[in-house]
Amino acid sequence: MAARYILPSAPPAHPAHRIPPSRRGPSAALLGTPRLARPSSAPAAHLKSAPSSQPAFPIDRGGRFSPPRCAGRGAAGRAVTAPAGRCVRPGHPARRGAGPPALPGPAPGSAAAAMKPCEEEEEEGRAAAAAGGGGGDPWKECVEVAVQLARRAGQIIRKALTEEKQVSTKTSAADLVTETDHFVENLIISVLKEKFPSHRFIAEESTAAGSKCVLTDSPTWIIDPVDGTCNFVHRFPTVAVSIGFAVNKELEFGVIYHCTEERLYTGRRGQGAFCNDKRLQVSKETDISKALILTEIGPKRDPATLKLFLGNIERLLKAQAHGVRVIGSSTLALCHLASGAADAYYQFGLHCWDLAAATVIIREAGGTVIDTSGGPLDLMSCRVIAAGTREMAMFIAQEIQTIHYRRDDEN
Amino acid sequence: MAARYILPSAPPAHPAHRIPPSRRGPSAALLGTPRLARPSSAPAAHLKSAPSSQPAFPIDRGGRFSPPRCAGRGAAGRAVTAPAGRCVRPGHPARRGAGPPALPGPAPGSAAAAMKPCEEEEEEGRAAAAAGGGGGDPWKECVEVAVQLARRAGQIIRKALTEEKQVSTKTSAADLVTETDHFVENLIISVLKEKFPSHRFIAEESTAAGSKCVLTDSPTWIIDPVDGTCNFVHRFPTVAVSIGFAVNKELEFGVIYHCTEERLYTGRRGQGAFCNDKRLQVSKETDISKALILTEIGPKRDPATLKLFLGNIERLLKAQAHGVRVIGSSTLALCHLASGAADAYYQFGLHCWDLAAATVIIREAGGTVIDTSGGPLDLMSCRVIAAGTREMAMFIAQEIQTIHYRRDDEN
Repeated sequence: MAARYILPSAPPAHPAHRIPPSRRGPSAALLGTPRLARPSSAPAAHLKSAPSSQPAFPIDRGGRFSPPRCAGRGAAGRAVTAPAGRCVRPGHPARRGAGPPALPGPAPGSAAAAMKPCEEEEEEGRAAAAAGGGGGDPWKECVEVAVQLARRAGQIIRKALTEEKQVSTKTSAADLVTETDHFVENLIISVLKEKFPSHRFIAEESTAAGSKCVLTDSPTWIIDPVDGTCNFVHRFPTVAVSIGFAVNKELEFGVIYHCTEERLYTGRRGQGAFCNDKRLQVSKETDISKALILTEIGPKRDPATLKLFLGNIERLLKAQAHGVRVIGSSTLALCHLASGAADAYYQFGLHCWDLAAATVIIREAGGTVIDTSGGPLDLMSCRVIAAGTREMAMFIAQEIQTIHYRRDDEN
Repeated sequence: MAARYILPSAPPAHPAHRIPPSRRGPSAALLGTPRLARPSSAPAAHLKSAPSSQPAFPIDRGGRFSPPRCAGRGAAGRAVTAPAGRCVRPGHPARRGAGPPALPGPAPGSAAAAMKPCEEEEEEGRAAAAAGGGGGDPWKECVEVAVQLARRAGQIIRKALTEEKQVSTKTSAADLVTETDHFVENLIISVLKEKFPSHRFIAEESTAAGSKCVLTDSPTWIIDPVDGTCNFVHRFPTVAVSIGFAVNKELEFGVIYHCTEERLYTGRRGQGAFCNDKRLQVSKETDISKALILTEIGPKRDPATLKLFLGNIERLLKAQAHGVRVIGSSTLALCHLASGAADAYYQFGLHCWDLAAATVIIREAGGTVIDTSGGPLDLMSCRVIAAGTREMAMFIAQEIQTIHYRRDDEN
């Protein structure tokens, strides 16, 4: 048996207590200053720099984004994006003299606190973004670091896959978390905070531990350290690391790493999507009777939810879909969609960290990502339809029934 | 779009006409005398020869098997196992002067006819089996050839995965077949017939084309050339070749090759099960509330069948199973079970060619394979429960409702 479960007689189920604090983060001795660079982990050529034909700064779509507005937005934005918290930027008094980055843990050094940038950093981030607008590629280094981190995290997960695990539950008996989820999330965030002290973070286990899950205009990393934790617990080899990045609420790039098959999926706005070095292209199927559909169960298992979940599969099979697949990893299912290996994906109960990176990848592979109502995607709504074609997405939107989940940004 | 579908206006749907005869088999020019040997395809060390501690001949379990009875069984057995058919043994008058092995096709050179051994060959097979009983390993060469063929077939499938496909249907709109299924099946059978002229064959596409699917006491190869054809059509990278081998109705060894991940699963009765060179071991989980369950939809899609299929998933999720996965390949799902990556698998509507190789692998990995009633496995009954433990298998047997499918050996 590869997993040890925390039994009901274990400490109370408050999120902060589920994994002993001593086991929450990578130990400083083990991590040291994380060494990420290795020849095989270098980003693929298409990610190394923005082609000269690409705008040097993210395109303003629908008037939602422009660097000057971002740089000079002032306190109104800050009131939302910078809740009070301990500043952990390197060189800041709280961290001066420290060797490796401080590991997020429960208060006072909690992950939640560590992820709240101080006002000084937020100003700095805006200045950096504005400077980037002057030329070059403002997110080039971010992409490179994300690729290196995804590979490094994948190595850790691959190794941990065969080892004994301590398993706890979150929102339901089927919503699992392990020490590896925490370890990998802390590793990723600590490295990113070191590199990009002005950036913000939304990450699965930090959110479960109480961090706010609010997407602001600040450059924001949206991280699922181990997507497919249930698979991971069972050593079912369909597990991924997902790192998305948004600026001014616009998804900028996504990096997903299939830990056991060592496939790196990347997508960057305006620059295409790739699996390793192969360009991804979605299926162009519009006919449900020739479609392969992907979905996932979601964490809620009450009878009404199960009825709706199974009813939706029934509707699509009655519409003569070739088949429905449930592989246990939303992000990898979405990567299959991006690669044209399936024609649609839908789910209720997934989170912004399951969706962020994959959404860029799918859109850059030519696909559609929308809300289950048929309207525009709302990253925080915990529901999605993605498809190779808009026709397929709209057919599914009309066919399936809504399963209600609380929004990610609700408290 | 990577698949072309044969439309309703195409020739009638009689199985023999679904793929034009000219496209049914590998062309002689392409195949030549199939070259299988290559350094990387050599069987793993554990398959090369029977250890000296192993009996030189298959063990008699429950008195069903002994070489002398097999060798001297005579006409009674032959009446069942040798229906009239064209003899295609190399050197037989029908084949004299031919270069590469004749490719099975429709009558008079049909796959069905080609797979019926003449009486002369059946006698020869018994003599060979009896000779094997005197020492050595009677099935060593069979295992080696199966491994080489599985790898060779896997190469072909991997290449074909990215190419345009001509897709037809069999028992339902979701029961698909392609030229590659036929090509690979014909390749495997033609090589095996050349090497082992006395052996018999049960194979998916030959059965669909009208061959009898009857397991006799003769050495019999049970072949699924492309398991996961729907995945294959969609380029969903979960596709396998499955080659099982039975003697006196006892499964002797199984070879399954994951075409895209290049994983070779092997199991040999009494000698363990392996993935590449790593020994497989099933999960020891007995508690459904800590279990990951695998299943597949099956080809029937009428409302009553769908209701039962989804109802069974609902029962297991209500019993608090961690999750249910549907990956689109029965054999690879069973391999996941054998490797301990899941705790149970059940299905109605799978066939003996989905089960034969996997059953040996699971049993040799320490698992249980039974009928959905809880009784012994009936390879021809189109239903199965496999689990790491007997307790888990029996729990599922009590929980799920039967979906009726016609037996494989029914006409």
